[in-house]
Amino acid sequence: MLNPPARNFSALTTDLYEVTMACGYWNAGVSDYEAAFHVTFRENPFAGEFTVACGLATAIDFLRAFRFDETEIDYLASQLGNDGKPLFSVGFLDYLRSLRLACEIDAVPEGTLVFPNEPLIRVCGPIIQCQLLETALLNILNFESLIATKAARVCLAAQNDPVIEFGLRRAQGVDGGLTAARAACVGGCAGTSNLQAGQQFGIPVSGTQAHSWIMFFENESEAFQTYAKAMPNNCVFVVDTYNSLDGVRHAIDIARRLRQNGHEMIGVRLDSGDRVALSIETRRMLDKAGFTNAKIVCSGDLDEHAIADMKRCGAKIDIWGVGTKLTTGQPDAALGGIYKLGAVRRPGGQWQYRIKLSDERAKTSVPGLLQVRRLHQPDGRFVADAIYELDHRASKPCVIVDLQTEQETEIPASMEYSDLLVPIFRKGRLVYQVPDLAASREHTRQQLRCAHAEILRLNNPTPYKIGLERSLHQLRSTLIARAKEQSK
Amino acid sequence: MLNPPARNFSALTTDLYEVTMACGYWNAGVSDYEAAFHVTFRENPFAGEFTVACGLATAIDFLRAFRFDETEIDYLASQLGNDGKPLFSVGFLDYLRSLRLACEIDAVPEGTLVFPNEPLIRVCGPIIQCQLLETALLNILNFESLIATKAARVCLAAQNDPVIEFGLRRAQGVDGGLTAARAACVGGCAGTSNLQAGQQFGIPVSGTQAHSWIMFFENESEAFQTYAKAMPNNCVFVVDTYNSLDGVRHAIDIARRLRQNGHEMIGVRLDSGDRVALSIETRRMLDKAGFTNAKIVCSGDLDEHAIADMKRCGAKIDIWGVGTKLTTGQPDAALGGIYKLGAVRRPGGQWQYRIKLSDERAKTSVPGLLQVRRLHQPDGRFVADAIYELDHRASKPCVIVDLQTEQETEIPASMEYSDLLVPIFRKGRLVYQVPDLAASREHTRQQLRCAHAEILRLNNPTPYKIGLERSLHQLRSTLIARAKEQSK
Repeated sequence: MLNPPARNFSALTTDLYEVTMACGYWNAGVSDYEAAFHVTFRENPFAGEFTVACGLATAIDFLRAFRFDETEIDYLASQLGNDGKPLFSVGFLDYLRSLRLACEIDAVPEGTLVFPNEPLIRVCGPIIQCQLLETALLNILNFESLIATKAARVCLAAQNDPVIEFGLRRAQGVDGGLTAARAACVGGCAGTSNLQAGQQFGIPVSGTQAHSWIMFFENESEAFQTYAKAMPNNCVFVVDTYNSLDGVRHAIDIARRLRQNGHEMIGVRLDSGDRVALSIETRRMLDKAGFTNAKIVCSGDLDEHAIADMKRCGAKIDIWGVGTKLTTGQPDAALGGIYKLGAVRRPGGQWQYRIKLSDERAKTSVPGLLQVRRLHQPDGRFVADAIYELDHRASKPCVIVDLQTEQETEIPASMEYSDLLVPIFRKGRLVYQVPDLAASREHTRQQLRCAHAEILRLNNPTPYKIGLERSLHQLRSTLIARAKEQSK
Repeated sequence: MLNPPARNFSALTTDLYEVTMACGYWNAGVSDYEAAFHVTFRENPFAGEFTVACGLATAIDFLRAFRFDETEIDYLASQLGNDGKPLFSVGFLDYLRSLRLACEIDAVPEGTLVFPNEPLIRVCGPIIQCQLLETALLNILNFESLIATKAARVCLAAQNDPVIEFGLRRAQGVDGGLTAARAACVGGCAGTSNLQAGQQFGIPVSGTQAHSWIMFFENESEAFQTYAKAMPNNCVFVVDTYNSLDGVRHAIDIARRLRQNGHEMIGVRLDSGDRVALSIETRRMLDKAGFTNAKIVCSGDLDEHAIADMKRCGAKIDIWGVGTKLTTGQPDAALGGIYKLGAVRRPGGQWQYRIKLSDERAKTSVPGLLQVRRLHQPDGRFVADAIYELDHRASKPCVIVDLQTEQETEIPASMEYSDLLVPIFRKGRLVYQVPDLAASREHTRQQLRCAHAEILRLNNPTPYKIGLERSLHQLRSTLIARAKEQSK
């Protein structure tokens, strides 16, 4: 599989307020102050207890191409304030014209399992640049992580059966389908129906025939026979246009003729009805007729729960085609990632930590420049994650504090660990070797293997242990107290 | 507002099976047979009783640009069947190289209210072309109609207040956000935060500052003051970073200074907390301080239900910023539009009708070439819709048959009517003057005005009366009986 080619991103992939703030910093003369922002999220999607980080390769494409062109500058120059005068100063627009990415960016590799409040990406650099990147980074990481997580759940439910992403027709736009196919592949899908995703990302594509093929002909047998003659090396017959088991009988008849001509039917597709019962009977019919290698493909309104239920009931399915609910990340449709300011510093100065209060203490932001330490057993199994601040020495042994309960957990000093965020950009230059899609998918698979089964359960999973390293927790408590004092 | 510029669509925006079927038709020598397909859906989204048709302008862009380029042909040529030999024949690939749209396409204009089982678009032409267009048409119409419908619901809840689409950061990809901003505008939104949508579609953009601006400075007053100095003609202060009512007090202080310098604060934004109570108190404070024209903007986890509730409780909000749930069409995330074959004919022959059976009789497809007749009162109010087949004369007076209940309703012959689908392409040439976005939005507004209030209710709406014109219903019943007979 390929790396995604650089896509045609616009620097206007942003909200107006990012640019008004950027102009505000510029006009106020503080645009060379530095800031540290993190993308994090508060809740795992799909009522699960894990999230698969995804979107970094796409974000890197965006960041490498980050420029304002003249048509974009012209558009901004045309915007007016409430006094009818230009919204953006000429000096600021000149700055945008010459803007080149100068940030230091660290991120977790695609396919890494991540958990609430952990940074997926850290952006340090001129406040004005950090602000301009916010919306696009959130858009890319939110969507791809959502879909990669959904795909991982679907693939877990399917056990070792291949899952094919089928959802382009119901996707949120053409690029929504393309990007979802990519993220679904990172999450574990074996292929897609989406040809553009096949072309751009090298994802294996599959598909054969729809009901319309069957309906075009006078009857199902004629439809199957004509297909077998026209496309003998791609025969997966969709059998439910009229009656699924009749369809299987017709498919077997045609498969016999195919075999006489030196071809093999790939299989049949069940798209409606009681697919547990139908698949058991279909398997029996295929085996009896000597087509023991023929595959049974199942499609139609599937998700991880439907697949798990069908498996539990003994369905004999070889390949799962999953569409709408995977490709649009139902029922959640969005991961609620946020981009929070952790610290600022004047040129040459020290970092000053920042915090945003919330009615709920757990929702108050986490200050500083953050890194995640993943603690694991000698066999690689994850035990807990500690979020720590780069300039605060970790206590030994490491003690992590839960953000909700404030409960402390001591991690034995002997525990092995690794830090999750790795350098991506230094002074605006890419310093990261972007893995190809197959490597990212393999990374997801390894991460899932290293997670304890109880956090991966589809229903009633156990939360993974994660918290702030104690000295970061103390820093945050001090800042909360100070902010409350000041706001009085 | 502008027409969308032609976008860079790929002919590979499709599922592999569309192309294998197309190749099958070609190899079988029936590629010049004609077919008639319709895009329809079975259920209105959001538990509502109406859908706003949207996406036609985007679909027209796709159709006008519909070509296979050499890289796409090369990609297809590289695909192999299960015998390791090429999947696609050389002749078929040559056909694709020279393919030019030759279809007759009719559709309902954007902004038209549509209902289950009604065709949004009818595609008649060579079966091979109809098949190749399926996935992209579904993708475009499904997504944009979903979002336009959501936007219409949100705008209905907001009564006459402007609604701004704010959801790019949580959208399903960059283009998901861009396309959603367009569809939200057709549905009734007054603006967007998305600059690219502003640039490409001419949608008014708005936005001022986020919490990060406030957090960058030592305290809120300094943050507001610096912004007011830097961007005096764009002041909407976000007041909830520390405490919302303190924030309002600080905003009023700054607004007084602004006014002394000849500028006016636009308003304040409430983004969290009890925004009913906060808005009432904020309005009181603003009015008392002499800022009776200052706007109160409300944002944060809004949808039609939240807005309706807040209105009912007396919230004093002037502008609503609606993000994630609008831009991703939650809770549904997808409209389940389908593309069904209604008829086929050999070159120079008569149309032969086609049907797909289903376990549920109401889900069985509707045969023929379909049009929708909307019956209305002299004042324009819609009364009922009759789906009819072009070659079947309507009974007089028109009798419509409900697909679920099979109940018949007679429509007085005196009733006025209009047909919803209009010609878009003839022999592959665009014959339709695409309205600009403002005109489509106005069309939505007029359509909503012509709908009886009970079908527009957010909760427990009454279904609109819609059915098959009696002679079409008889045709369908005959075909169902025949198909059941044949499948025995």
